[in-house]
Amino acid sequence: MPLNLRIPGPTPLPPDVLEVTGGPMINHRGPLFKEIIDRMTRNMQTLLQTEGDVYFTTSSGTGAMETAVVNVLSPGDRVLSVSIGTFGDRFGDLAEAYGADVTRFTTKLGDAAEPDVVRAAIRDADPYKAILLTHNDTSTAVQNDLAALSAMIHAESDALILVDAVSSAGGTPLAIDAWGLDMVATASQKAWTAAPGIGVIAVSEKAWQAYEQSTMPKFYFDIAQYRRFLEIGQPPFTPALSTIYGLDLSLQQLVDEGLESVLARHSDRARQTREGVKRIGLELFCEERVASDTVTAIKVPDGVDGIAVIAKMRDELDVEISGGQGALVGKIWRIGHMGWCEPEHIDDCIAALEKALARD
Amino acid sequence: MPLNLRIPGPTPLPPDVLEVTGGPMINHRGPLFKEIIDRMTRNMQTLLQTEGDVYFTTSSGTGAMETAVVNVLSPGDRVLSVSIGTFGDRFGDLAEAYGADVTRFTTKLGDAAEPDVVRAAIRDADPYKAILLTHNDTSTAVQNDLAALSAMIHAESDALILVDAVSSAGGTPLAIDAWGLDMVATASQKAWTAAPGIGVIAVSEKAWQAYEQSTMPKFYFDIAQYRRFLEIGQPPFTPALSTIYGLDLSLQQLVDEGLESVLARHSDRARQTREGVKRIGLELFCEERVASDTVTAIKVPDGVDGIAVIAKMRDELDVEISGGQGALVGKIWRIGHMGWCEPEHIDDCIAALEKALARD
Repeated sequence: MPLNLRIPGPTPLPPDVLEVTGGPMINHRGPLFKEIIDRMTRNMQTLLQTEGDVYFTTSSGTGAMETAVVNVLSPGDRVLSVSIGTFGDRFGDLAEAYGADVTRFTTKLGDAAEPDVVRAAIRDADPYKAILLTHNDTSTAVQNDLAALSAMIHAESDALILVDAVSSAGGTPLAIDAWGLDMVATASQKAWTAAPGIGVIAVSEKAWQAYEQSTMPKFYFDIAQYRRFLEIGQPPFTPALSTIYGLDLSLQQLVDEGLESVLARHSDRARQTREGVKRIGLELFCEERVASDTVTAIKVPDGVDGIAVIAKMRDELDVEISGGQGALVGKIWRIGHMGWCEPEHIDDCIAALEKALARD
Repeated sequence: MPLNLRIPGPTPLPPDVLEVTGGPMINHRGPLFKEIIDRMTRNMQTLLQTEGDVYFTTSSGTGAMETAVVNVLSPGDRVLSVSIGTFGDRFGDLAEAYGADVTRFTTKLGDAAEPDVVRAAIRDADPYKAILLTHNDTSTAVQNDLAALSAMIHAESDALILVDAVSSAGGTPLAIDAWGLDMVATASQKAWTAAPGIGVIAVSEKAWQAYEQSTMPKFYFDIAQYRRFLEIGQPPFTPALSTIYGLDLSLQQLVDEGLESVLARHSDRARQTREGVKRIGLELFCEERVASDTVTAIKVPDGVDGIAVIAKMRDELDVEISGGQGALVGKIWRIGHMGWCEPEHIDDCIAALEKALARD
């Protein structure tokens, strides 16, 4: 069996996606590319449940998060950064690097951001220009209730809602228009079942109005350049074609499968993972009601060398999982189950974890 | 014959590079990736003739140019932008978007920037913090004498030298350390014979000193993040793995072939192209002494529909060349001959151009 890559992205890719990823180069300013980008845009709109604009940047998910920030904000703008982990902290750092006046709302690691608590933080303060939310933080494998959070924000405030949906979109329910989200960032190597290299940004009408006022500097991530070029079926800058070939195929397959089935598949695999973890006597890092559909975090039992277990699984059992980041190094393991993930992948992963622990 | 893609990047890729580009995903924070990035970094240093730092961003060449600007400059810094075409203009636009005080030095399209003329522009003005140079502008297929320009700048000024070498590096002589260049940007899909998706930035010691003073905002392109992570053999953000697989193989092949041979090959193919163009009765757009080693521009003869010829070559003869950009739309054709380019590719391209013209 080839490596069973069960980190929270990049995900393993099925043979047909890999095959097109290795396809020949084409002119990114020609008619064939126009067909591809038009189809990708339509399919991504369907999967993100939006009729708003969607653009593809050549970048990681962090590049897409930077795109979300710099196009609608100005230095000095008051921003509430709601963080449930490493990636939420990063979103706030990013806004701060560009001069936003960032207020940090941070939960205990393993907790979600509860709408009522965030509501109090909004009521107690002067109005915010934008609120930064993480849909799913892979660092803790916790998923926020984004529908409830965004409904609460709309009831309390006129703030723009900027969402890091890098590791949630395509794997967990996300209805951009219905929930009134303004800038939503995701990336090709997560639930989308493609190689890394393409960031995705969805832009609401309200975000475009904010763009007109925004003075944060931008060039490579300037969405007006993406809009202008998409009108002629082109990218503003040479895109990561190989990644795009795979993403184009995969998006079409997801649309053909149907969003409901795609999401049910992710939810099933998440449940299978949690049950497997408990079956071998391990404890989940967070409560099941906030557990992610795309990645699962497990507590490393006392006395076990978490990092050695990862190396043993990788080097001896051909299964690769992730450890913790920052304060959680050595304290948790993380199993990714987004994108291409068959039930056998999870069974194999849980069996390898059990085996590695028995030998420890 | 598959499509003979003779645009100035992306370039066609040989079968072995395409094969690895379609290879399986790996953990970008694991030991295998460390091996890859360490080897790529060493090989890129060899090919760029530098012992300074080299980093790989997931972006196009424009992203690498943005990296060059935002890491060493501050808003209000006086910058001289020396432009010989579209990409030189873009470099200046980019610095301006981030608040630099940009003075524009622009040549007539088809001309190179002559060191003596640029010298006068430097002497006539207050000191510049940085000078932006294009090594090779694919929009006009003109190559600057970067060795002479940089020697002149060092004699006249303490300015940082920021170079767009996106379409020159790996195809034409470029000695970063010997010429004292501070930030040099290039990209995977040009002479490097890989897919698009990876930007490259070379950073001098003097550039690192400037980094300490720089206040332009940055996060995704912040070189300090790249430096910190490279120390542990990782990228700061998930990289375009597929592109990296191909680039890694290709860089190793170029080092094995030897830089001298690689450059001679490019220069031979450029000469072959120019001779072919003249043989079929067409005129080159620029003087041969400033002609590029990586792309050749041809005047569209009076009365010929330049755009129709491109479509005919592509749709009927399986050869794709580029037209002009901006003021040169319909006025020139451009033939790329960087990266993987065999003598037969050029013969086939010239024959197709002749055939398309005969039918016009």
